[in-house]
Amino acid sequence: DVGLRRAEIKDGIRFVQLCKDQSGMIGLRVRHVNKGLFVAFVHANSPASLAGVRFGDQILQINDQTVAGWDNDKAHKYLKKCEPQKITMAIRDRPFERTITMHKDSGGTIGFVFKNGKINSLVKDSSAARNGVLTEHHLVEVNGQNCVGLKDEDTRELIRSGPECITITIMPSFIYEHIIKCMGNSLVKKLMDHSIPDW
Amino acid sequence: DVGLRRAEIKDGIRFVQLCKDQSGMIGLRVRHVNKGLFVAFVHANSPASLAGVRFGDQILQINDQTVAGWDNDKAHKYLKKCEPQKITMAIRDRPFERTITMHKDSGGTIGFVFKNGKINSLVKDSSAARNGVLTEHHLVEVNGQNCVGLKDEDTRELIRSGPECITITIMPSFIYEHIIKCMGNSLVKKLMDHSIPDW
Repeated sequence: DVGLRRAEIKDGIRFVQLCKDQSGMIGLRVRHVNKGLFVAFVHANSPASLAGVRFGDQILQINDQTVAGWDNDKAHKYLKKCEPQKITMAIRDRPFERTITMHKDSGGTIGFVFKNGKINSLVKDSSAARNGVLTEHHLVEVNGQNCVGLKDEDTRELIRSGPECITITIMPSFIYEHIIKCMGNSLVKKLMDHSIPDW
Repeated sequence: DVGLRRAEIKDGIRFVQLCKDQSGMIGLRVRHVNKGLFVAFVHANSPASLAGVRFGDQILQINDQTVAGWDNDKAHKYLKKCEPQKITMAIRDRPFERTITMHKDSGGTIGFVFKNGKINSLVKDSSAARNGVLTEHHLVEVNGQNCVGLKDEDTRELIRSGPECITITIMPSFIYEHIIKCMGNSLVKKLMDHSIPDW
């Protein structure tokens, strides 16, 4: 299943290499949570997006600097000073997220109600209920495609038009809201990377 | 690596079959979180323990009843009424937990400070810092062995006496504290299953 493969949260640590674009940007904003540094925003078509960096990824190292305990500011300043040709990051794949794979019910729905991306309730005996979808969680991806900042109707269309088997990626709302807090609403809505992963 | 294998959080849903013991118990307490039902306590040497049910597991179905939206009370009453010979549960493996595998530093330590099982700080440039261990998380297992309710010194001994490569299982503290809230402190300390998984 392609959606499942794209959504899969991988164990272990991966390394990505980035170059800054002509305006000196890599297209990434980060947020510190519990002494860790997390990806809060990926600019569409940016170096970060093309390198496969995702919302929710935990950055462990930048150019051999261990970033545990760094705050947003320190990280953004450090990135600004990095040489543009080669920035290496060690990344742990979306630690606060998990995926749930479901078959659509006979009506073509999964069976949960969400508003501004937040899951508020489950439909009794639906596929979502049977598979243990939880409320107080935010929908972050549908079949591995990021939906942070999408209008609810667009996320619903992603689900509706998707295959019979749907994999959603969710994150506890209290962490989601903390990570997204400092991002401008319009920034996320207009410029967040919502591309379909090409793997 | 045995510890890693024992700790590994598996995708998908598994089914367990339980019989009540002579006193009519299966040795399980549950707690509702976000419309889901989670294992809050496993009695040592109980049917639940022998069947491999773990702290943090999400129960999805009991005897074909979907339990989404049930509260503790409803679940405990339902379990009480179940026929003793065969109780079937559909279970999702510890959804709020994740594992981090680390090599000990040269001094034999991993590099985080915890109190009452809660990770409070990281040692700079330690293995924990390099691997992205987070504060505000509770330590739930060491090499797949449950340490909920253990004294900190006993958990430390588990780490100290363990192999050079250690896998810890952690859970965000705000969820841990919610799940454990209704359990008596002495119940957890005296009777929680801390056996080494036999797989």
